[in-house]
Amino acid sequence: MSTLPSLSPARPSVEQVSIGQYLIQRLRDYGIRHVFGIPGDYVLAFYTMLEQSPVEVVGCTREDNAGFAADAYARVAGMGAVCITYCVGGLSTCNSIAGAFAEKSPVVVISGSPGLAERRNNPLLHHMVRDFRTQYEVYQRLCIAGAELNDPTTARREIDRVLDTVYRFKRPGYLEIPRDMVHVSCQPGGGFVPPSEQSDPDTLAEAVDEAVEMINRSRRVVVVAGVELHRFGLQDLALELIEQCQIPFTVTMLGKGVIRETHPLFVGLYAGALGRDEVTQFVEESDCVILLGTFMSDINLGIYTANLDPGRCIYVTSERLQIRHHVYPGVQFEDFLRELIARRPTPPAREIPSWARRKLEPFQVEPQRPLTITRLIQRLNHLLDENTVVIADVGDAMFASTELVIRQRTEFLAPAYYTSMGFAIPAALGAKMANPRLRPLVLVGDGAFQMTFQELSTIVRHGQNPVVLVLNNCGYGTERLLHPGDWRFNEIQPWQYHKVPEVFGGGVGYDVCTEGQLEQALQQAWQDRDQMHLIHIHLDRCDCSHTLARLGRRLQRRVDTSSGEE
Amino acid sequence: MSTLPSLSPARPSVEQVSIGQYLIQRLRDYGIRHVFGIPGDYVLAFYTMLEQSPVEVVGCTREDNAGFAADAYARVAGMGAVCITYCVGGLSTCNSIAGAFAEKSPVVVISGSPGLAERRNNPLLHHMVRDFRTQYEVYQRLCIAGAELNDPTTARREIDRVLDTVYRFKRPGYLEIPRDMVHVSCQPGGGFVPPSEQSDPDTLAEAVDEAVEMINRSRRVVVVAGVELHRFGLQDLALELIEQCQIPFTVTMLGKGVIRETHPLFVGLYAGALGRDEVTQFVEESDCVILLGTFMSDINLGIYTANLDPGRCIYVTSERLQIRHHVYPGVQFEDFLRELIARRPTPPAREIPSWARRKLEPFQVEPQRPLTITRLIQRLNHLLDENTVVIADVGDAMFASTELVIRQRTEFLAPAYYTSMGFAIPAALGAKMANPRLRPLVLVGDGAFQMTFQELSTIVRHGQNPVVLVLNNCGYGTERLLHPGDWRFNEIQPWQYHKVPEVFGGGVGYDVCTEGQLEQALQQAWQDRDQMHLIHIHLDRCDCSHTLARLGRRLQRRVDTSSGEE
Repeated sequence: MSTLPSLSPARPSVEQVSIGQYLIQRLRDYGIRHVFGIPGDYVLAFYTMLEQSPVEVVGCTREDNAGFAADAYARVAGMGAVCITYCVGGLSTCNSIAGAFAEKSPVVVISGSPGLAERRNNPLLHHMVRDFRTQYEVYQRLCIAGAELNDPTTARREIDRVLDTVYRFKRPGYLEIPRDMVHVSCQPGGGFVPPSEQSDPDTLAEAVDEAVEMINRSRRVVVVAGVELHRFGLQDLALELIEQCQIPFTVTMLGKGVIRETHPLFVGLYAGALGRDEVTQFVEESDCVILLGTFMSDINLGIYTANLDPGRCIYVTSERLQIRHHVYPGVQFEDFLRELIARRPTPPAREIPSWARRKLEPFQVEPQRPLTITRLIQRLNHLLDENTVVIADVGDAMFASTELVIRQRTEFLAPAYYTSMGFAIPAALGAKMANPRLRPLVLVGDGAFQMTFQELSTIVRHGQNPVVLVLNNCGYGTERLLHPGDWRFNEIQPWQYHKVPEVFGGGVGYDVCTEGQLEQALQQAWQDRDQMHLIHIHLDRCDCSHTLARLGRRLQRRVDTSSGEE
Repeated sequence: MSTLPSLSPARPSVEQVSIGQYLIQRLRDYGIRHVFGIPGDYVLAFYTMLEQSPVEVVGCTREDNAGFAADAYARVAGMGAVCITYCVGGLSTCNSIAGAFAEKSPVVVISGSPGLAERRNNPLLHHMVRDFRTQYEVYQRLCIAGAELNDPTTARREIDRVLDTVYRFKRPGYLEIPRDMVHVSCQPGGGFVPPSEQSDPDTLAEAVDEAVEMINRSRRVVVVAGVELHRFGLQDLALELIEQCQIPFTVTMLGKGVIRETHPLFVGLYAGALGRDEVTQFVEESDCVILLGTFMSDINLGIYTANLDPGRCIYVTSERLQIRHHVYPGVQFEDFLRELIARRPTPPAREIPSWARRKLEPFQVEPQRPLTITRLIQRLNHLLDENTVVIADVGDAMFASTELVIRQRTEFLAPAYYTSMGFAIPAALGAKMANPRLRPLVLVGDGAFQMTFQELSTIVRHGQNPVVLVLNNCGYGTERLLHPGDWRFNEIQPWQYHKVPEVFGGGVGYDVCTEGQLEQALQQAWQDRDQMHLIHIHLDRCDCSHTLARLGRRLQRRVDTSSGEE
């Protein structure tokens, strides 16, 4: 579903274009048609220019929400942008941009700042913290590249450099425009020359030789597909390798959805204690594990309950190629995949186990039965279609969602590594803007909902039609599992979540406790594609998915041990 | 109203106390009885310890709101604290802590972090960005002091050092506790010795000599009272000077409320174009201006429309003593004040002009008259009593609030320098926790309300009783004034603000368009002190206070000029 924008070279001739105009042109070159944010006086000049351009400004209620929306937009459309004012805006966006960094989402952060002429004699301008460079220095820690556009002779090159770096590394980049530079013309100057991305041919050949030999010599081969396949647009190549060689494949949690899960070679989610035992065993008893673009992060690997022997692994990402215990530097992910496919490895056929051929079990509504998350997921599996994008927030919303069967690729968005609560609602806004054909199905816990739910207002304002399921288990349920006991700090104020549409002036709310009520609400919501639907789902405070229960048992031991309480 | 906690020395003997317990003890020494925040797995061990201690954990809906609440708590109680988890919590709190830094509010940020034992081999742990020190490095830019409590032999000294620095400089400090260090016992080690704070006696004597001479020689003397008088607990001394010498005084916007505005020597708010012309003229035609603890920031000085000749100024703050064009290094603010009072300067009497003796004009409700902000403020002036704390959010809520008459000191809270929207609602929570006798009267614009209004949920949960006035002028009104034109980016979704209490499960909402409706709502709200009241006030989209109108005319010229559009 996702199509990465084709990489455009820097524009050769842009005399008489202002710094602001050049930036807008370049954003469009990368396929950015929407910019999320909130205006403020230091960025008003650039907002005005944006509003007069073909790029649409999507005003959000909070800057961090704008960051989450831009992140989801980037995941779906290939690149996203957020535009905010100095410090009060920029420093409000740190967390969502940190999440984009951690999970490799290419978001451009554009911030206004005080005009250069205003800075003489170092005055105390409003919104300023410590000194004029504070925000820039903070973003140096959260971005892959950054620039202050304070010099018309270098502005073009700096814009090109930052956008190119964001595009190549799939990490956020930072551009700060002093408000008196927006209308200043770019001066001619040396253009930006992107660094070479060629693999070293000898290293590549040697690596592929070894990989082919390892695959051909193996008896039980498996592919683990990760999120970078999606970020770098390599899903088709990965699928080509898988199908050509008929290799069974699995996905990590962060990679869920990169290849459709209805594929006959798909065996399930690989995530240590988090995933099903059969899948874990299937992967770990393999003598050749090809990891394509996976993050070796803790939650992705079931809090290190995954148990992979590196001596049996071919591990390739945009940053690293490692076969067994040695590293091949300077090999591009895509080159390696292409070369491997060209060499047509011939591993022995490996049977897809019968447990992997899961048919969708029929779901029978029991109208009076109280709701559980497990039964909810079973029901939702019958609802998903090829235009659904599932967006899961942190907590059991995410863990339970791993049990959903994703029919198409990129249909599943979740902050599965950085795990920042409150991602899902603003992400629904961003995903829909990026691809209006998608319909977001949002699963969000009550705690996460309370953090960012005001972005539903923007969703209503734009007439978007997500179906939002608020999973109300009366507090921070995942933490109750990690750290049992009746701790008051896990309690939150109970809300009438279904009344939220009345406040925001649009959409329909439902309050459901039983399967019968849920069924009615789901039917009505699914059929009405013209507005937002919010279903308040009452769960028992101790209810949790099988996935979370498994994880809880593991994590609990770790939390208690590391806190010195045992 | 505010009483600064008395400075306790570091505790001499704490063998067998864990790092977590020692930190809690020290927080209590500084008068901290409440900690605001949200739990998360990296901070669960410390949360558990907090819940078992006499310190109350106030769970918030969002971490940045917890930061704002802790800031307001610090402004009222003398010191505040926020406690959050690693990165997803800490990086969500950057903006509110930046505001505390900019406006000198002593807030302690306590963050959990991955256990030291978990960090071996540099794994990708959840919530991590770039590397383990990213958050610490970000907070180095936003705090006056910071420490990672990763060594039991230095932990006590580091805690003492950071808390002492926060207390002395009235700026935020940062403490990070790896989750496996919470229960580790503090080891004996060199204690923290606070640096000397003694003024150099010769410098002090010379400075006071000059000041006394300048005051005695003057013909028209005035005091400008600033916010540092409140932060450093120097209001009584300032008042002693003012009364002993019978010097008329004024306040800056950020300092509004540091001395009660019903004082017979008070002449009004001094803020350049923002304030009344008579006050500006009164100050600027003085031949001796004594600035006590003022920030020389742009909004505080009416965006530099204030016009003070340094050759006539005695400028003293916690950071600097300057008389005319020269600086006296190493003189403490308090020492200077005390010495000056002891020398009993005798300036010539200066008459308080008749315009400064403003009587409260009677307010006659015109029941059918549509609401305006100007008339609202006139009405509210009759409502304020000695237990009201006015909390104003950014925008016309703040500008109009400068026209309120503050009856007691520290009764006015507003982010008047950093001007971060969304401060007021969480600040109401924090102020009430700090002093339960206070009743918050919150003025907040619709745009600011949408950012952080979920903290009303916490206010309801704790049975607090603020009266919240949502000033709905359909969008970002201040920006419309700064940058005229029908810009879509200044529009926001219209909400049914008065229905918010129904969602959060407590409090009463009112929807008012006329003075008659407002009167009824105000009467009911003011009489019922047992719950929260939220009044949705419909204003014309072009309505604004006299103060904002004045400021708008000035700022507009600056924005347009600096954006290069003129």
